Order: sequence, then structure tokens, then C-alpha cells
Amino acid sequence: MRMSELSAASGVSVPSIKFYLREGLLPGGERIKANQVSYSDEHVRRLRLIRALIDIGGLSVNTAREVLAAVDAPGPSLSRTFGVAQYALSLSGSGSTAKDGSGSAEVDQLVEQLGWTVSEENPGRQLAGRVLDTFAELGQPQLAALAPEYARAAEAVARADLASVAAREDVAAMTETVVVGTVLGDTLLTALRRMAQEHIARQQF
Amino acid sequence: MRMSELSAASGVSVPSIKFYLREGLLPGGERIKANQVSYSDEHVRRLRLIRALIDIGGLSVNTAREVLAAVDAPGPSLSRTFGVAQYALSLSGSGSTAKDGSGSAEVDQLVEQLGWTVSEENPGRQLAGRVLDTFAELGQPQLAALAPEYARAAEAVARADLASVAAREDVAAMTETVVVGTVLGDTLLTALRRMAQEHIARQQF
Repeated sequence: MRMSELSAASGVSVPSIKFYLREGLLPGGERIKANQVSYSDEHVRRLRLIRALIDIGGLSVNTAREVLAAVDAPGPSLSRTFGVAQYALSLSGSGSTAKDGSGSAEVDQLVEQLGWTVSEENPGRQLAGRVLDTFAELGQPQLAALAPEYARAAEAVARADLASVAAREDVAAMTETVVVGTVLGDTLLTALRRMAQEHIARQQF
Repeated sequence: MRMSELSAASGVSVPSIKFYLREGLLPGGERIKANQVSYSDEHVRRLRLIRALIDIGGLSVNTAREVLAAVDAPGPSLSRTFGVAQYALSLSGSGSTAKDGSGSAEVDQLVEQLGWTVSEENPGRQLAGRVLDTFAELGQPQLAALAPEYARAAEAVARADLASVAAREDVAAMTETVVVGTVLGDTLLTALRRMAQEHIARQQF
């Protein structure tokens, strides 16, 4: 199909498609004549994935590019893919102004208490430490005390995530599930937390 | 203290302080001479809160302004404050390209199944529906099937959130806990999910 047809099929505007081509998120089409390029259903599918990561997952174009590169080169092990998807934390500037407060010691303690095996490089470690430091700075120690409860919920969710990945038929499908599930799963969990807060607040106040 | 001292005390640069004043996130100081304005410890505290919401919570300046307005005017009921904090979903363009797919029916069904009472206006409803629609569009129905597990985790977290709020001493303190806990709690949960995924992946693969 031509670019105008790709736009109609995917619901993505022609200028946006050109932008994703230029930025390397969308692979080029097949040149069939000197002045005509043809796009396939794979391009439609890819555009849906790009829009999902950016619009629903809240990723920046740069982060989406890195995550899509992991989808394109699944690699020998799923753990590498998990690593890349894990870096897709939809936060502006996360990690940019890191300072080592006592939060990282609290996170170490939490990991030990839970019996988790988590590498030092896991991006969640640093981010969790920064949140705990910030709770302390803002005079909200009772929020830091919620971390074990949050961790138990995160573990239940992660267990469901992994079971869902293991059920896919091959590594390519698993990889896409890891990426979509990790990025959009954050959004789903956040949305459900808002709903649950309203439900509990109605019971309590 | 002068602006230069406020900058040193808060760790926020003078240009950033001027920006937050201009944007209405930080209240002005007290004019003590024709050419001198004095800032207090409250300004230091407010700057820490602003940076937490934007840097760690990933909020835009506009969303942070709305959330801070709720902190400043706690209002007669905490439910209104919860409502405002709930809108602070750190997602670019969330809700902007809403289309009514079958996801919203799935969310209705989930809410009924869980026995939750959640208003139609809860921002989590629409967002959860969009995520479920996107899972379907991307050919990932097994991810949509995780929603009940995610909802149970969200309910456990929300119960802890509300208990933590109820323990605060007055409405102003409760309001700040709602805002900080809701916005930064998203980040903490996301971070812990990354860590739990690594732990479970190590056990499984």
C-alpha cells in the first residue's frame, strides 16, 4: 500500500508517519518504482505499537526507539529484553539528578526482607530509592512505610506478567508481550489504583 | 531569606525559582523593601514538593499547578482532593484521543466482578479502558486477561494508601499526603514492579 493508504489503515497521519520513518521507529517500505514505496500490514502493526508506547505508555520518542530496537532484535535471551523494557520508565528525567540518600539502603533492606534477587543495575532500585528519599525530604515517613505493601502487590503483578509471557509461542511473540506488558501494564496499574482509591475512600470517609 | 538563599536552601536554581513564580506554582515572597522580597521556610518546603511532583512523579508543569492548587485549598472534603490527585496521571496526552472501544465494557464488568463502587468520571476508568482496547488492537489478549490480578494488587495498595492518609493529624496534612502518595506512589509501584519482574524472571528462565 502507499503511504496515504498506510495512514488510512493505521489512523496515523502522514506527517506523523514521515516523522517515525525519519526518527527510525518505523522501518522504510519497499521501493517498487523510482518514485513509489510500498508499505505492508507489518507497517500498520508497527504503527499501532508505536502509538501505544507513546500515547498510552507515555514514552518519549527516544525511549520508544530503544524499546522497539529490543523488539526487532529479540536476542538470545529474554532477560536482555526484560532489561531493555525495564528501562522504559515513563518518567521525565528519571535518574538524571540522582543523589545517594538513605533511600537506597532502605531499598536494600526491603529486597533482603522480601528474599528477592535483584541486580544492582535494575533501574527500579535507583528509582525506588529516590522516591523513599523524597518521602523523607517532604516529611512523609508514613508513605515510606507503605513500601513493603507496595512490594507485595508488585510481586503479585510481576508473577502474572511472567506467566503471561511464558505462555507465548516463540521468542519474538514473547518479546513483544514483554514490551507491551511492561510499558502499558504500568498505565493499567496506575489507572486501576485510581479506581480502587475511590472505592476505598467511599467506604472510609 | 533572599532568592539566592532560597536557591541554596532548596537546591533549586534561581532561573527555575523565577519560572515557578511566573507559572504560579510557587507563591510570591513578602516585599520587605522596594527592591527586596523575602522568602520563608515554607517556600523551601514548597519548592521540594514542586520538584518531587515534576522530577519524580513525572507531572507536567500544568498538572503540577492543578495538584498544588488542591493542596492550597483542601476544601471541605477529602474526596474532592482525591479527585484532583487522581487526575494527576503522569501520561502525555492521556484522554486526548479517546475512542470508545470494547475496553470500557470490560472495565464495567471488572468493576462489577470486584464489587467496587467507582463513579463514571473516575479518570482511571477511561484510561484502563484504553489500555484494554490497545491490548486487543495489538493482538495481546492474554495481557487483557491479567486485569483482575492487577486490580487485586491495586486494591491492596489503595487500602494501604487510605490507611496512611487517615492517620494524618489534620485535613491540610491529609491533603498533602494524598497528593504526594498518589503521584509518587505511582512511581514507587512502577519501580518495585521492575524489581519484582527481575526476581521472578530469574526464577523462571
